[in-house]
Amino acid sequence: MNLEAEQTYFMQQALVEAKKAYLINEVPIGAVVVHDGKIVGRGHNLREWLEDATVHAELVAIQEACRTLNSWRLVDCDLYVTIEPCLMCSGAIINSRISRVFYGAPDLKAGAVNSLYQTLTDSRLNHQVEVFSGLYADKSAQLMKDFFKAARKKRKSVK
Amino acid sequence: MNLEAEQTYFMQQALVEAKKAYLINEVPIGAVVVHDGKIVGRGHNLREWLEDATVHAELVAIQEACRTLNSWRLVDCDLYVTIEPCLMCSGAIINSRISRVFYGAPDLKAGAVNSLYQTLTDSRLNHQVEVFSGLYADKSAQLMKDFFKAARKKRKSVK
Repeated sequence: MNLEAEQTYFMQQALVEAKKAYLINEVPIGAVVVHDGKIVGRGHNLREWLEDATVHAELVAIQEACRTLNSWRLVDCDLYVTIEPCLMCSGAIINSRISRVFYGAPDLKAGAVNSLYQTLTDSRLNHQVEVFSGLYADKSAQLMKDFFKAARKKRKSVK
Repeated sequence: MNLEAEQTYFMQQALVEAKKAYLINEVPIGAVVVHDGKIVGRGHNLREWLEDATVHAELVAIQEACRTLNSWRLVDCDLYVTIEPCLMCSGAIINSRISRVFYGAPDLKAGAVNSLYQTLTDSRLNHQVEVFSGLYADKSAQLMKDFFKAARKKRKSVK
Protein backbone atom coordinates (compact mmCIF):
# COMPACT_ATOMS: atom_id res chain seq x y z
CA MET A 1 0.00 0.00 0.00
CA ASN A 2 1.37 3.43 -0.84
CA LEU A 3 1.32 6.15 1.80
CA GLU A 4 -1.81 7.87 0.53
CA ALA A 5 -3.76 4.62 0.27
CA GLU A 6 -2.65 3.74 3.79
CA GLN A 7 -3.87 7.05 5.19
CA THR A 8 -7.18 6.66 3.35
CA TYR A 9 -7.60 3.17 4.77
CA PHE A 10 -6.94 4.24 8.36
CA MET A 11 -9.33 7.18 8.11
CA GLN A 12 -11.95 4.78 6.74
CA GLN A 13 -11.38 2.67 9.84
CA ALA A 14 -11.87 5.75 12.05
CA LEU A 15 -15.16 6.27 10.16
CA VAL A 16 -16.14 2.65 10.84
CA GLU A 17 -15.67 3.44 14.55
CA ALA A 18 -17.72 6.64 14.23
CA LYS A 19 -20.56 4.63 12.70
CA LYS A 20 -20.47 2.23 15.64
CA ALA A 21 -21.08 5.25 17.91
CA TYR A 22 -23.93 6.41 15.63
CA LEU A 23 -25.65 3.04 15.92
CA ILE A 24 -25.81 3.26 19.72
CA ASN A 25 -26.94 6.90 19.77
CA GLU A 26 -23.59 8.37 20.70
CA VAL A 27 -22.19 11.50 19.04
CA PRO A 28 -20.54 9.74 16.06
CA ILE A 29 -16.80 10.21 16.39
CA GLY A 30 -14.27 7.44 15.81
CA ALA A 31 -10.51 7.05 16.08
CA VAL A 32 -7.71 4.59 15.48
CA VAL A 33 -4.07 4.58 16.58
CA VAL A 34 -1.57 3.16 14.09
CA HIS A 35 1.93 1.84 14.73
CA ASP A 36 4.20 0.34 12.10
CA GLY A 37 1.35 0.10 9.59
CA LYS A 38 -0.99 -1.71 11.98
CA ILE A 39 -3.97 -0.56 14.07
CA VAL A 40 -2.96 -0.92 17.74
CA GLY A 41 -5.93 0.89 19.26
CA ARG A 42 -9.43 1.81 18.13
CA GLY A 43 -12.32 3.53 19.80
CA HIS A 44 -15.58 5.40 19.44
CA ASN A 45 -17.36 7.80 21.68
CA LEU A 46 -19.06 5.99 24.59
CA ARG A 47 -20.00 8.90 26.84
CA GLU A 48 -23.70 8.16 27.23
CA TRP A 49 -23.30 4.39 27.08
CA LEU A 50 -20.80 4.32 29.96
CA GLU A 51 -21.99 7.54 31.67
CA ASP A 52 -18.39 8.73 31.67
CA ALA A 53 -17.35 12.17 30.40
CA THR A 54 -13.83 11.00 29.55
CA VAL A 55 -14.53 8.18 27.08
CA HIS A 56 -14.16 10.11 23.84
CA ALA A 57 -13.06 8.13 20.76
CA GLU A 58 -9.45 9.33 20.94
CA LEU A 59 -9.06 8.49 24.63
CA VAL A 60 -10.44 4.98 24.15
CA ALA A 61 -8.11 4.40 21.18
CA ILE A 62 -5.07 5.80 23.02
CA GLN A 63 -5.77 3.65 26.10
CA GLU A 64 -6.08 0.54 23.94
CA ALA A 65 -2.85 1.42 22.11
CA CYS A 66 -1.03 1.80 25.47
CA ARG A 67 -2.27 -1.68 26.44
CA THR A 68 -1.31 -3.19 23.07
CA LEU A 69 2.21 -1.73 23.10
CA ASN A 70 2.51 -2.05 26.90
CA SER A 71 3.81 1.51 27.11
CA TRP A 72 2.40 4.93 27.93
CA ARG A 73 4.76 6.36 25.33
CA LEU A 74 3.14 5.91 21.91
CA VAL A 75 6.34 6.75 20.06
CA ASP A 76 6.06 6.67 16.25
CA CYS A 77 2.30 6.24 16.48
CA ASP A 78 -0.28 8.10 14.38
CA LEU A 79 -3.83 8.90 15.44
CA TYR A 80 -6.66 9.12 12.91
CA VAL A 81 -9.90 10.70 14.11
CA THR A 82 -12.99 11.80 12.21
CA ILE A 83 -13.45 15.15 14.01
CA GLU A 84 -10.91 17.66 15.36
CA PRO A 85 -9.95 16.67 18.93
CA CYS A 86 -11.18 18.65 21.96
CA LEU A 87 -8.90 19.96 24.74
CA MET A 88 -9.01 16.71 26.70
CA CYS A 89 -8.14 14.55 23.71
CA SER A 90 -5.47 16.96 22.45
CA GLY A 91 -3.92 16.81 25.91
CA ALA A 92 -4.02 13.01 25.84
CA ILE A 93 -2.34 13.04 22.39
CA ILE A 94 0.47 15.20 23.80
CA ASN A 95 0.76 13.18 27.01
CA SER A 96 1.07 9.93 25.06
CA ARG A 97 3.73 11.39 22.70
CA ILE A 98 1.82 10.51 19.52
CA SER A 99 3.81 11.64 16.44
CA ARG A 100 1.12 12.56 13.89
CA VAL A 101 -2.58 13.34 13.99
CA PHE A 102 -4.90 13.10 10.98
CA TYR A 103 -8.37 14.49 11.56
CA GLY A 104 -11.31 14.77 9.19
CA ALA A 105 -13.61 17.73 9.86
CA PRO A 106 -12.96 20.74 12.11
CA ASP A 107 -14.87 21.34 15.35
CA LEU A 108 -15.34 25.09 15.39
CA LYS A 109 -16.90 25.11 18.88
CA ALA A 110 -14.43 22.97 20.80
CA GLY A 111 -11.52 22.00 18.54
CA ALA A 112 -8.15 22.35 20.25
CA VAL A 113 -5.88 21.52 17.30
CA ASN A 114 -6.69 24.42 14.97
CA SER A 115 -10.10 25.97 15.69
CA LEU A 116 -9.98 27.39 19.25
CA TYR A 117 -6.48 26.39 20.30
CA GLN A 118 -3.38 25.13 18.52
CA THR A 119 -2.23 22.89 21.34
CA LEU A 120 -0.49 20.16 19.31
CA THR A 121 2.05 22.55 17.82
CA ASP A 122 2.61 24.67 20.97
CA SER A 123 6.39 24.95 21.34
CA ARG A 124 6.05 25.73 25.07
CA LEU A 125 4.95 22.16 25.75
CA ASN A 126 7.36 19.20 25.97
CA HIS A 127 5.97 17.47 22.89
CA GLN A 128 4.75 18.62 19.49
CA VAL A 129 2.66 16.72 16.98
CA GLU A 130 2.46 16.89 13.17
CA VAL A 131 -1.09 17.69 12.10
CA PHE A 132 -2.92 16.81 8.88
CA SER A 133 -6.58 17.60 8.32
CA GLY A 134 -9.29 17.28 5.71
CA LEU A 135 -9.18 13.57 4.85
CA TYR A 136 -12.81 12.39 4.62
CA ALA A 137 -13.86 15.73 6.11
CA ASP A 138 -17.23 15.71 4.30
CA LYS A 139 -18.16 12.17 5.31
CA SER A 140 -17.07 12.83 8.93
CA ALA A 141 -19.06 16.06 9.14
CA GLN A 142 -22.10 14.54 7.39
CA LEU A 143 -22.30 11.75 9.94
CA MET A 144 -22.41 14.37 12.72
CA LYS A 145 -25.08 16.41 10.88
CA ASP A 146 -27.24 13.31 10.32
CA PHE A 147 -26.91 12.41 13.99
CA PHE A 148 -27.94 15.80 15.34
CA LYS A 149 -30.76 16.09 12.80
CA ALA A 150 -32.16 12.71 13.89
CA ALA A 151 -31.73 13.68 17.57
CA ARG A 152 -33.71 16.91 17.03
CA LYS A 153 -36.45 14.98 15.20
CA LYS A 154 -36.64 12.46 18.04
CA ARG A 155 -36.90 15.23 20.65
CA LYS A 156 -39.68 16.91 18.65
CA SER A 157 -41.68 13.69 18.34
CA VAL A 158 -41.46 13.19 22.14
CA LYS A 159 -42.89 16.66 22.86
CA MET B 1 -17.57 21.88 59.37
CA ASN B 2 -17.36 25.43 58.09
CA LEU B 3 -16.55 26.07 54.45
CA GLU B 4 -12.87 26.79 54.97
CA ALA B 5 -12.35 23.72 57.16
CA GLU B 6 -14.13 21.63 54.53
CA GLN B 7 -11.87 22.89 51.77
CA THR B 8 -8.79 22.25 53.90
CA TYR B 9 -9.98 18.72 54.61
CA PHE B 10 -10.58 17.89 50.95
CA MET B 11 -7.21 19.26 49.89
CA GLN B 12 -5.61 17.14 52.62
CA GLN B 13 -7.34 14.15 51.05
CA ALA B 14 -5.92 15.10 47.64
CA LEU B 15 -2.50 15.17 49.33
CA VAL B 16 -3.15 11.71 50.78
CA GLU B 17 -3.70 10.54 47.21
CA ALA B 18 -0.52 12.29 46.04
CA LYS B 19 1.45 10.46 48.73
CA LYS B 20 0.07 7.14 47.51
CA ALA B 21 1.55 7.97 44.09
CA TYR B 22 4.87 8.91 45.72
CA LEU B 23 5.07 5.54 47.46
CA ILE B 24 4.84 3.64 44.17
CA ASN B 25 7.32 5.91 42.35
CA GLU B 26 4.74 7.85 40.38
CA VAL B 27 4.90 11.63 39.95
CA PRO B 28 3.07 12.54 43.19
CA ILE B 29 -0.19 14.21 42.22
CA GLY B 30 -3.53 13.44 43.87
CA ALA B 31 -7.13 14.50 43.40
CA VAL B 32 -10.60 14.09 44.87
CA VAL B 33 -14.05 14.95 43.50
CA VAL B 34 -16.58 16.19 46.04
CA HIS B 35 -20.37 16.25 45.78
CA ASP B 36 -22.70 17.41 48.51
CA GLY B 37 -19.92 17.42 51.10
CA LYS B 38 -18.79 13.87 50.33
CA ILE B 39 -15.89 12.45 48.31
CA VAL B 40 -17.37 10.64 45.29
CA GLY B 41 -14.13 10.03 43.41
CA ARG B 42 -10.47 9.91 44.29
CA GLY B 43 -7.33 9.17 42.35
CA HIS B 44 -3.61 9.47 42.04
CA ASN B 45 -1.27 9.38 39.11
CA LEU B 46 -0.80 5.81 37.82
CA ARG B 47 0.93 6.44 34.50
CA GLU B 48 3.97 4.20 35.01
CA TRP B 49 2.11 1.60 37.08
CA LEU B 50 -0.53 1.04 34.39
CA GLU B 51 1.62 2.08 31.40
CA ASP B 52 -1.19 4.41 30.34
CA ALA B 53 -0.60 8.07 29.47
CA THR B 54 -4.16 9.04 30.38
CA VAL B 55 -4.36 7.96 34.03
CA HIS B 56 -3.53 11.26 35.69
CA ALA B 57 -4.95 11.83 39.20
CA GLU B 58 -7.77 14.07 37.97
CA LEU B 59 -8.91 11.67 35.27
CA VAL B 60 -8.99 8.73 37.67
CA ALA B 61 -10.99 10.79 40.21
CA ILE B 62 -13.42 12.07 37.55
CA GLN B 63 -14.00 8.57 36.17
CA GLU B 64 -14.71 7.24 39.69
CA ALA B 65 -17.07 10.15 40.37
CA CYS B 66 -18.97 9.38 37.13
CA ARG B 67 -19.36 5.78 38.28
CA THR B 68 -20.42 6.80 41.80
CA LEU B 69 -23.03 9.27 40.58
CA ASN B 70 -23.90 7.16 37.53
CA SER B 71 -23.70 10.23 35.33
CA TRP B 72 -21.14 11.80 33.01
CA ARG B 73 -22.41 15.20 34.14
CA LEU B 74 -20.71 16.01 37.45
CA VAL B 75 -23.06 18.89 38.18
CA ASP B 76 -22.39 20.72 41.47
CA CYS B 77 -19.15 18.79 41.95
CA ASP B 78 -15.83 20.27 43.05
CA LEU B 79 -12.41 18.88 42.15
CA TYR B 80 -9.44 19.26 44.49
CA VAL B 81 -6.00 18.54 43.05
CA THR B 82 -2.52 19.12 44.44
CA ILE B 83 -0.98 20.50 41.21
CA GLU B 84 -2.46 22.68 38.45
CA PRO B 85 -4.16 20.44 35.86
CA CYS B 86 -2.61 19.85 32.41
CA LEU B 87 -4.47 20.27 29.10
CA MET B 88 -5.93 16.77 29.17
CA CYS B 89 -7.22 17.05 32.72
CA SER B 90 -8.54 20.59 32.21
CA GLY B 91 -10.43 19.29 29.20
CA ALA B 92 -11.84 16.42 31.26
CA ILE B 93 -12.94 18.92 33.94
CA ILE B 94 -14.79 20.94 31.29
CA ASN B 95 -16.26 17.84 29.60
CA SER B 96 -17.61 16.55 32.93
CA ARG B 97 -19.17 19.94 33.83
CA ILE B 98 -17.39 20.21 37.19
CA SER B 99 -18.37 23.46 38.96
CA ARG B 100 -15.28 24.43 40.93
CA VAL B 101 -11.60 23.48 40.88
CA PHE B 102 -9.22 23.96 43.81
CA TYR B 103 -5.57 23.33 43.02
CA GLY B 104 -2.51 23.59 45.22
CA ALA B 105 0.68 24.56 43.37
CA PRO B 106 1.02 25.89 39.81
CA ASP B 107 2.61 23.89 37.00
CA LEU B 108 4.53 26.48 35.04
CA LYS B 109 5.54 24.05 32.28
CA ALA B 110 2.20 22.41 31.49
CA GLY B 111 -0.57 24.03 33.58
CA ALA B 112 -3.69 24.74 31.53
CA VAL B 113 -5.73 26.57 34.18
CA ASN B 114 -3.56 29.64 34.70
CA SER B 115 0.07 29.08 33.70
CA LEU B 116 0.11 28.33 29.94
CA TYR B 117 -3.61 28.41 29.16
CA GLN B 118 -6.72 29.63 30.95
CA THR B 119 -9.00 26.92 29.63
CA LEU B 120 -11.42 26.64 32.56
CA THR B 121 -12.60 30.23 32.24
CA ASP B 122 -12.63 30.38 28.42
CA SER B 123 -16.01 31.91 27.50
CA ARG B 124 -15.83 30.39 23.98
CA LEU B 125 -16.34 26.91 25.42
CA ASN B 126 -19.72 25.54 26.52
CA HIS B 127 -18.80 25.31 30.20
CA GLN B 128 -16.82 27.48 32.60
CA VAL B 129 -15.38 26.53 35.96
CA GLU B 130 -14.67 28.60 39.10
CA VAL B 131 -10.99 28.34 40.00
CA PHE B 132 -9.30 28.64 43.40
CA SER B 133 -5.58 28.07 43.90
CA GLY B 134 -2.91 28.09 46.57
CA LEU B 135 -4.40 25.83 49.26
CA TYR B 136 -1.53 23.62 50.50
CA ALA B 137 0.58 24.93 47.60
CA ASP B 138 3.85 24.53 49.54
CA LYS B 139 3.16 20.96 50.66
CA SER B 140 1.99 19.99 47.15
CA ALA B 141 5.06 21.50 45.50
CA GLN B 142 7.45 20.09 48.14
CA LEU B 143 6.21 16.55 47.50
CA MET B 144 7.02 17.02 43.80
CA LYS B 145 10.47 18.46 44.58
CA ASP B 146 11.27 15.56 46.94
CA PHE B 147 10.16 13.09 44.29
CA PHE B 148 12.29 14.51 41.49
CA LYS B 149 15.30 14.95 43.81
CA ALA B 150 15.08 11.28 44.84
CA ALA B 151 14.65 10.25 41.19
CA ARG B 152 17.77 12.17 40.16
CA LYS B 153 19.73 10.61 43.03
CA LYS B 154 18.58 7.12 41.99
CA ARG B 155 19.59 7.75 38.38
CA LYS B 156 23.03 8.96 39.51
CA SER B 157 23.61 5.91 41.70
CA VAL B 158 22.76 3.61 38.76
CA LYS B 159 25.36 5.26 36.50
